[in-house]
Amino acid sequence: MSVRKVRVGVLGAAGTVGQRFIQMLEKHPWFEVVALAGSERQVGREYGEVVRWQLGEDPPEYARRMILQQSEPTLECEVVFSALPSDKAAHLESRFAEAGYKVFTNAGGHRMDSDVPLMVPYINPEHLGAIPCQQQNRGWKGFILTNPNCASIPLAMALKPLHERIGVVRVLVTTMQGVSGAGYPGVPSLDILGNIVPHIEGEERKVETEPLKMLGAWGGYTFEYAPIRISAQCHRAPVRDGHLVAASVEFSQPVAERDVLDAWLEWRPDILGMDLPSSAAHPLVYRTEPDRPQPAKDLMAEGGMGTVLGRLRPCPLLGWKFNALSHNTVLGAAGCSLLNAELYFAATEGTV
Amino acid sequence: MSVRKVRVGVLGAAGTVGQRFIQMLEKHPWFEVVALAGSERQVGREYGEVVRWQLGEDPPEYARRMILQQSEPTLECEVVFSALPSDKAAHLESRFAEAGYKVFTNAGGHRMDSDVPLMVPYINPEHLGAIPCQQQNRGWKGFILTNPNCASIPLAMALKPLHERIGVVRVLVTTMQGVSGAGYPGVPSLDILGNIVPHIEGEERKVETEPLKMLGAWGGYTFEYAPIRISAQCHRAPVRDGHLVAASVEFSQPVAERDVLDAWLEWRPDILGMDLPSSAAHPLVYRTEPDRPQPAKDLMAEGGMGTVLGRLRPCPLLGWKFNALSHNTVLGAAGCSLLNAELYFAATEGTV
Amino acid sequence: MSVRKVRVGVLGAAGTVGQRFIQMLEKHPWFEVVALAGSERQVGREYGEVVRWQLGEDPPEYARRMILQQSEPTLECEVVFSALPSDKAAHLESRFAEAGYKVFTNAGGHRMDSDVPLMVPYINPEHLGAIPCQQQNRGWKGFILTNPNCASIPLAMALKPLHERIGVVRVLVTTMQGVSGAGYPGVPSLDILGNIVPHIEGEERKVETEPLKMLGAWGGYTFEYAPIRISAQCHRAPVRDGHLVAASVEFSQPVAERDVLDAWLEWRPDILGMDLPSSAAHPLVYRTEPDRPQPAKDLMAEGGMGTVLGRLRPCPLLGWKFNALSHNTVLGAAGCSLLNAELYFAATEGTV
Amino acid sequence: MSVRKVRVGVLGAAGTVGQRFIQMLEKHPWFEVVALAGSERQVGREYGEVVRWQLGEDPPEYARRMILQQSEPTLECEVVFSALPSDKAAHLESRFAEAGYKVFTNAGGHRMDSDVPLMVPYINPEHLGAIPCQQQNRGWKGFILTNPNCASIPLAMALKPLHERIGVVRVLVTTMQGVSGAGYPGVPSLDILGNIVPHIEGEERKVETEPLKMLGAWGGYTFEYAPIRISAQCHRAPVRDGHLVAASVEFSQPVAERDVLDAWLEWRPDILGMDLPSSAAHPLVYRTEPDRPQPAKDLMAEGGMGTVLGRLRPCPLLGWKFNALSHNTVLGAAGCSLLNAELYFAATEGTV
Repeated sequence: MSVRKVRVGVLGAAGTVGQRFIQMLEKHPWFEVVALAGSERQVGREYGEVVRWQLGEDPPEYARRMILQQSEPTLECEVVFSALPSDKAAHLESRFAEAGYKVFTNAGGHRMDSDVPLMVPYINPEHLGAIPCQQQNRGWKGFILTNPNCASIPLAMALKPLHERIGVVRVLVTTMQGVSGAGYPGVPSLDILGNIVPHIEGEERKVETEPLKMLGAWGGYTFEYAPIRISAQCHRAPVRDGHLVAASVEFSQPVAERDVLDAWLEWRPDILGMDLPSSAAHPLVYRTEPDRPQPAKDLMAEGGMGTVLGRLRPCPLLGWKFNALSHNTVLGAAGCSLLNAELYFAATEGTV
Repeated sequence: MSVRKVRVGVLGAAGTVGQRFIQMLEKHPWFEVVALAGSERQVGREYGEVVRWQLGEDPPEYARRMILQQSEPTLECEVVFSALPSDKAAHLESRFAEAGYKVFTNAGGHRMDSDVPLMVPYINPEHLGAIPCQQQNRGWKGFILTNPNCASIPLAMALKPLHERIGVVRVLVTTMQGVSGAGYPGVPSLDILGNIVPHIEGEERKVETEPLKMLGAWGGYTFEYAPIRISAQCHRAPVRDGHLVAASVEFSQPVAERDVLDAWLEWRPDILGMDLPSSAAHPLVYRTEPDRPQPAKDLMAEGGMGTVLGRLRPCPLLGWKFNALSHNTVLGAAGCSLLNAELYFAATEGTV
Repeated sequence: MSVRKVRVGVLGAAGTVGQRFIQMLEKHPWFEVVALAGSERQVGREYGEVVRWQLGEDPPEYARRMILQQSEPTLECEVVFSALPSDKAAHLESRFAEAGYKVFTNAGGHRMDSDVPLMVPYINPEHLGAIPCQQQNRGWKGFILTNPNCASIPLAMALKPLHERIGVVRVLVTTMQGVSGAGYPGVPSLDILGNIVPHIEGEERKVETEPLKMLGAWGGYTFEYAPIRISAQCHRAPVRDGHLVAASVEFSQPVAERDVLDAWLEWRPDILGMDLPSSAAHPLVYRTEPDRPQPAKDLMAEGGMGTVLGRLRPCPLLGWKFNALSHNTVLGAAGCSLLNAELYFAATEGTV
Repeated sequence: MSVRKVRVGVLGAAGTVGQRFIQMLEKHPWFEVVALAGSERQVGREYGEVVRWQLGEDPPEYARRMILQQSEPTLECEVVFSALPSDKAAHLESRFAEAGYKVFTNAGGHRMDSDVPLMVPYINPEHLGAIPCQQQNRGWKGFILTNPNCASIPLAMALKPLHERIGVVRVLVTTMQGVSGAGYPGVPSLDILGNIVPHIEGEERKVETEPLKMLGAWGGYTFEYAPIRISAQCHRAPVRDGHLVAASVEFSQPVAERDVLDAWLEWRPDILGMDLPSSAAHPLVYRTEPDRPQPAKDLMAEGGMGTVLGRLRPCPLLGWKFNALSHNTVLGAAGCSLLNAELYFAATEGTV
């Protein structure tokens, strides 16, 4: 790694995902935050005044005095992390990429584009290969690299080793998602205290399609989706952080319990050898207790960058069923975007 | 209806289900509570002193001064409603039935017995037909009639009209269950505040088997189970009352959305014509909003004796998926047992 | 009561307090809802479409098809119940009163006006006497009659008999308030799940002053405030409905526990003899258990129109301390306004 | 500090406070856990099997394989940390002290003994002086040193600098306490979900008396209590961790806001110079936002070893009012006991 850190900016810095970026970038060994951008109303004010900080007491010291800038491709940095709301993000991110910025985004607008990687470094680091194609297609000097929806992640993480080693055909998944996934102010307390809401706008479509792209292959010209069929039912639950899913999986061949467990336990994603600063040491953790994973206990596994599995048992319909849990604003959002950036620099710029 | 009310007793009267019996039997037009039974420690004390009342301010006036008796077949009544813990219930209920009592029980011990009805009057009133056989088999003057586990009910209610009219083959169901289903003290608050627990002991087996008996037929000698395969994943959620389920259903033939909706909306269980005092007017309610049913809004539909459906949409795997909700201590426990008793008396003793 | 019902309208009908008005006015024996008013965006649409109903499954049948009108003094009714947000309410309510409407409002704008009653019928029905003065002062044909802030009510209810019979000098009160008091969307779930917020904008000032007006006297020209000093600390808690307060009271003379209890238990507000439709039979209920009142158990005492007291014990500083609880959207808002209207018609129009 | 670590044992190691000891003692620079003790039922089993771990995923590696021993003074260590339930603790702790153990206990049995320190090192380190007297009185080679009840701590912390610099006369305090304070299984979820319970057995007496001992002086023979009068009202709230208090304080002289703030902000407890491993750098933190402290945001201030203050404002009755928050199982229990031990060794054994 070179002595000079990469200069980065954060778009949508005051939102809940933006805050997680700010937090995870504190004292980052490779990246230095030099620009924060916010809404019109926030521009020109200090971050510490503007933000309604949700992650404990205070924003990190380094960010408090930074002045919020406009979300325009005039920020003096090489990388932007985007925590923009999806409706505003797509066009703006394109303008940044066109202007030469490396854009790592949590927003949904470009996730399913045919030349944009939808990437979790544990799962599909080879999708980085789409970037030159994207740049050529669009005439961009920069690029856009996306991470998936927070509810797609625990499922895709659980499926990756199973699909790679055994072959997954069909998946039925039910989610129970924490409220931080909706941002702030997000879910009104009257809607969720002592309640469960069986609906999150647009979420089921994402959970049914994003994993197919991630588990698929970059074909050199476009992505070949994995031939898996997923059906999702998404729920909001009175939990602060953490997305718990219950999944049933049909494999392409008969499998024993040991096969499934081994696929998970022996999985060693390529990036583990790269010593990326934000990577989990064990991206998948399997709990043997009968009542795990639980948000209250397993949320912070591997610093929030892991996915916790449990309760593997036969499914009389599809084959095997289990639960999985990821932290929706760490691995499920900012953490994944950050890991994407780390992988990019480690892979393409060698010694970073 | 005759002038004299049927004399009833309640076993396990101080527990959470027992309390619901006491509440629903207040001013009941057919039944008069004349005996309450409790644990050794409670015997001889006033109900109002012993009970830790969970259903609002106070137990009904009529019950407060009643003295708790031993759970022995010496109670001076014709009917007993059993809210006993399952481990103690099975043997004791047999002794009551042998001694001539009509036992309507919420406990699980006898649910799957080959000559004991597992009944929800909306669903399978014809299973009453097993009682004479049960009496003959066992040499009992009384009988035992059970109602299902609280989490089986919303699923079985949703499936009944679908199976009857269309034919159901396979079902995948995920439950999110309120804490009152575990009784009192039940779930420790440290386990459930801001958390979801993907495990309820023994629950999945019940949800996978009980509906098959209910949706099956009484064959004159034993029950023929419905040839449906169910896979369940059960979760405890930080909700006081109400069991919400997310289900996907495969039918025996292609069906359109209209077919499913019509099956639900046009279903008119036979017992609706009998004017049973505790019956819902509309046992199934379908909500058209995108985010219903929810425990906080739909729990008390039809006084807690209804089941609320919503979110019917195609399932890319099995056919159709939807949500269903029932009140777990009303229709899901005491209310169902009471409705069973009402049906029994209306059906067998004519004018009651 | 005459055969013709009084025609009433509801302003702010779609908000949380507006909904409670709609609910409590269903089948009201004296009042008939003939007009609903809403925001610009809502005008012209059906209530059932516009409202995000919070009080169970559905708005009452009678209201669903009603078309929302503008909040202008052109509504064809005699009475308006106002559930307007406070910032908009004050001026608009004056215009309604000027135009001849009888305005019963839950909004705060006029509560402390020197000729406007701030009334809870159990406490200070004689403040009705200010209305003629108000009309003369302002040249109005109609009038405005207000009810207190939801957090002032449990305290004022507890103090009334104590002040009347013994004399109260100083009160220290801490509140723990349910989220419905902030309306909808109101409190974001990220702010309150598993949390307590020691701040509610403007609330402490209201709790410190409103009871003084209510416990004071109408002097024929202006109100004489009760010479009590109150200090309040207000908190938002993760509770749906119900405002629980912990109070310590200093009396003007030495008192025994029995004196305090007797003052509460023997209190019989004058209006109890009037058979007002929405009145509690027992406006104050004292619980003797060591852990009451609690929102989960005592919220619906007297249909939500009562106040529940408990835990009276010596305060080593001030004299006596205790807890009190009221339902913040029933007695604490719409219910009080409705009871005010009932009292007004019973008192001034005799035969109602 | 010498090279050899002090050998310590933990009594009640599997309970919620015991778990916090285990967690905080991991990699402790001065102490090495060599013995864990549990109930009869647990003796002879591995800690990792016995414990129902509440503090995230897993107990620390070092503790998992340790075999639980009997709670008898045969443990091979010099120090015992006691997380025993109070009813069992008093006698047993005496036997340990008699046998020569240094007992640092969170249990309540000896807190108010006339020769036993009740100590928070930030507040009253000089109470260590009672130990020789205790040993002489009782003929013990070891000793007992206690820390206060979890709800006494935020109040005592807030009062210390005020009493020292200004003089406190009377305090009225209301608490809102997290459920972990009641241990496990502790508070049933049906009692606390969406509820507040205005009662915690024995708690008010503790909060009214313990601070007086802590803020008092060790007189060489017995403790002289601070001449302060406290009145407490204690509530259990649906919060996992954290005890929030609302307090009003009367001073012995007129004070300005600045005086109170300065007393807090300028307070520098003596022990800060000793570099104790578990000490907060800033034991008191004052937040200037209008809605702080909150459990969700301020719980982990200073790693849970700090107390967070906020909302200082005039109290029309007593003088000044404010909120304070501490973590009830860190500073409020195990953390305080551990800090007591650190202080003891640093103060008495010099080089530790």
